[in-house]
Amino acid sequence: MISLKDLNPHLLTAEYAVRGPIVIRAQELEKQGKKIIYCNIGNPQALKQKPLTYIRQVLGLMEYPALLENEKALSAFPKDMIERAKKLHHMMPHGTGAYTQSAGTPFMKQAIAEYITKRDGIPADENQIIMTDGASKGVSAVLTALLKKPSDGFMIPIPQYPLYSATIELYGGSQIGYYLDEANSWQLNEEILTKSLNDAKAKGIDPVAIVVINPGNPTGAVLSFENVKMVIEFARKHKLAIMADEVYQDNVYAIDGMFHSFAKVMHQLGDNETTLFSFHSVSKGFMGECGHRGGFLEIRNVPADVMAEFIKLQSISLCSNTVGQLVTYLVVTPPQKGEASYDLYVQERDGILSELKAKAEILGKGLNGIEGMEIDVPQGAMYAFVKFELPHTADVSKMSAAERLAYESKRDNDYCMALLEETGICVVPGSGFGQLPGTLHFRTTFLPPRDEMESLVEKMRAFHSEYVDQIAKSK
Amino acid sequence: MISLKDLNPHLLTAEYAVRGPIVIRAQELEKQGKKIIYCNIGNPQALKQKPLTYIRQVLGLMEYPALLENEKALSAFPKDMIERAKKLHHMMPHGTGAYTQSAGTPFMKQAIAEYITKRDGIPADENQIIMTDGASKGVSAVLTALLKKPSDGFMIPIPQYPLYSATIELYGGSQIGYYLDEANSWQLNEEILTKSLNDAKAKGIDPVAIVVINPGNPTGAVLSFENVKMVIEFARKHKLAIMADEVYQDNVYAIDGMFHSFAKVMHQLGDNETTLFSFHSVSKGFMGECGHRGGFLEIRNVPADVMAEFIKLQSISLCSNTVGQLVTYLVVTPPQKGEASYDLYVQERDGILSELKAKAEILGKGLNGIEGMEIDVPQGAMYAFVKFELPHTADVSKMSAAERLAYESKRDNDYCMALLEETGICVVPGSGFGQLPGTLHFRTTFLPPRDEMESLVEKMRAFHSEYVDQIAKSK
Repeated sequence: MISLKDLNPHLLTAEYAVRGPIVIRAQELEKQGKKIIYCNIGNPQALKQKPLTYIRQVLGLMEYPALLENEKALSAFPKDMIERAKKLHHMMPHGTGAYTQSAGTPFMKQAIAEYITKRDGIPADENQIIMTDGASKGVSAVLTALLKKPSDGFMIPIPQYPLYSATIELYGGSQIGYYLDEANSWQLNEEILTKSLNDAKAKGIDPVAIVVINPGNPTGAVLSFENVKMVIEFARKHKLAIMADEVYQDNVYAIDGMFHSFAKVMHQLGDNETTLFSFHSVSKGFMGECGHRGGFLEIRNVPADVMAEFIKLQSISLCSNTVGQLVTYLVVTPPQKGEASYDLYVQERDGILSELKAKAEILGKGLNGIEGMEIDVPQGAMYAFVKFELPHTADVSKMSAAERLAYESKRDNDYCMALLEETGICVVPGSGFGQLPGTLHFRTTFLPPRDEMESLVEKMRAFHSEYVDQIAKSK
Repeated sequence: MISLKDLNPHLLTAEYAVRGPIVIRAQELEKQGKKIIYCNIGNPQALKQKPLTYIRQVLGLMEYPALLENEKALSAFPKDMIERAKKLHHMMPHGTGAYTQSAGTPFMKQAIAEYITKRDGIPADENQIIMTDGASKGVSAVLTALLKKPSDGFMIPIPQYPLYSATIELYGGSQIGYYLDEANSWQLNEEILTKSLNDAKAKGIDPVAIVVINPGNPTGAVLSFENVKMVIEFARKHKLAIMADEVYQDNVYAIDGMFHSFAKVMHQLGDNETTLFSFHSVSKGFMGECGHRGGFLEIRNVPADVMAEFIKLQSISLCSNTVGQLVTYLVVTPPQKGEASYDLYVQERDGILSELKAKAEILGKGLNGIEGMEIDVPQGAMYAFVKFELPHTADVSKMSAAERLAYESKRDNDYCMALLEETGICVVPGSGFGQLPGTLHFRTTFLPPRDEMESLVEKMRAFHSEYVDQIAKSK
């Protein structure tokens, strides 16, 4: 029988806090009948967000094509989506049950390229696109392909979505953490980047690529044009590939905020040299179709033989799931003005986005008003990375750096576990994403319905003050 | 810009022939208007196999739940599937758009455990099951977890489905090939296993696990009870984990053939010691739902902490796609006698399986009747691994073993490429799966419709004799 010692040691040390011990405890409590508010993960439809109607109508007609021959049944569908489904059946005659080409269905990749062109006003090539099971599998593929030896280093933000740290750890590469500038709305800072890079090189690490998440996870920040430009120039200067996690591109709420894709800025800079991997997903945005595991990877500035290797890698697991591919296709080709489904689409889309914007404000302003908590209103994505303070329970001045890290990580874990046990609110400790030593954070989504968000803020206020009091008393 | 030298060298050397150069050429020819018969891959619905109606009815109602509130639309569905969909919506209230738990939806895992119990008459534990995006992702996860260092060896059959060789190569482990016994219907042979194991150990390889594909891919063989028992005893003796690829378990055509799962035989042997990973998929069987990427992995004889590591690994990419999970659930809970959909289900299932059986015979007997080809009627799965002979174009007696391998591999590749160019029939060269030095094979599916299978045999007959003649003339 195999035991832990027979497992890949990199698997044992990999950590993925978004589904870590606190979430496992939450599931136990839920089984026991406790009401849990899952703010640990960006899973909108698990928190009552409704799917976009047109997407599901087409999926229904694609999965059970006999409906298209049943006039009574068709009365449940708008005309444009019936036409759409008929056209799709014609274009993918084997339907949803057959493997597609490794990189995805060709006409869908073409639509994705057109979507990028429309979004950014730049050329895009369908042959540089690979459809993936969500963005996670795209990220995992790129890391697999770029990681040659343990000293290969990937620059990742701190805090970061732990997919990156977990996957780099799993494949046995080196992490080069760079702090995001919390005081400057979590933008990237060139000095910090340079210092991180130089420190890593001094330790014998060979930097390969830089990961940027924009809009930010867990920070909820939206990078400015200037900031994206700085990163591209930094990457070019240091010959790094860029891995741009842009899955929250539709989630920008700040009035003065705007999503600037790395592809667009790179094109405007005339950079034909820096390799770019850009990731998108149907799990986020206003569609929130997490369960369907759809997404794509666009690769720029690589020779054809390198592209062929990425497609070969994809071919080993055959292809991404067809329904995820369909959802991705539908997301990049929404109903157009004049079509029967257009008004409902706009109403649903704008409704979801304005709710998210309102909830970002409720959360940001609400938590910022709590004594000992500090947070800007999130500008984008679905998260707030909330800074909080607790009285110390030990003399930190006597701790080594490692001891301090362990102490802080225990503090935020204990806090989040107590929050869960007391209130049923499930958030993720900041140490799961990384944070500046000596600071404490937690990540929460702002996905629960508006009324729940309001009561969540109140529950957190009560919990926090009681928790602080108890620490003070116990001293 | 990155170039090939910046890529993981294991990616560059990994090969996956099922989607290799011949298939890429076939796609080019198809674009130019040539009719291609894709016999390279087990993709039934791309070759006109119809999906099972009940599965698609439920998917339609799950994707677009509004249908359940529309009486007119419901007239297109049988009563039992309407009830089924309502129950499913109740049991998965977030629908198909939300992430599930990492290892899959709990009630579905329970149904899978009950299915195993019913199939094999043995206990099965839902907590030992992980739902995966097809079997490929399960295999990839197990290899990721078990591979600690480059000298860790996995015993894989020759010939084998190249997912195994490609993934082991990709992750930098060692392959320990063992020949299947072609003269004995491609069963495993203990002497050959022992010799392969000892040879590998002598080279400093540490054997970790043995991969068995039953029914066989590419061989179409079904292992006897005795053969499965022998493998389990071999694995226990040598402390190997077993990776049992059982995705063709429903595809057994031989009258005296029967599928014996490793779990069942292990239970009957009272073996509580040998770790077993068993893979299943919805892509094969009679459902052929390849595009939906559904499947599961059952793990036996591991401690709880090891199981937790497998679930953590799955959590890093969140969960398998929900529609694939639904299809898997529906496959393990088909309509029951007395339900409205039962008769149609039985008719569709038996129709597909009897067609496959008939086509296996047409192919087996037909090709075996061609001068210079040798093949038994496949007993199971969807493939025949056809042995063929060609006149030599060089003096093989003067070649080294490596030269001989390169020569044979060029010969079968050239043959399959010429077959494609001449006839439009796309098969995979035997060297893509591995074969005994000095022999030539190709793998073909028997999935095309019956009339096409008959004409395929005739086309192959004409092609083969012409190809042989041309070689003879050119000498």
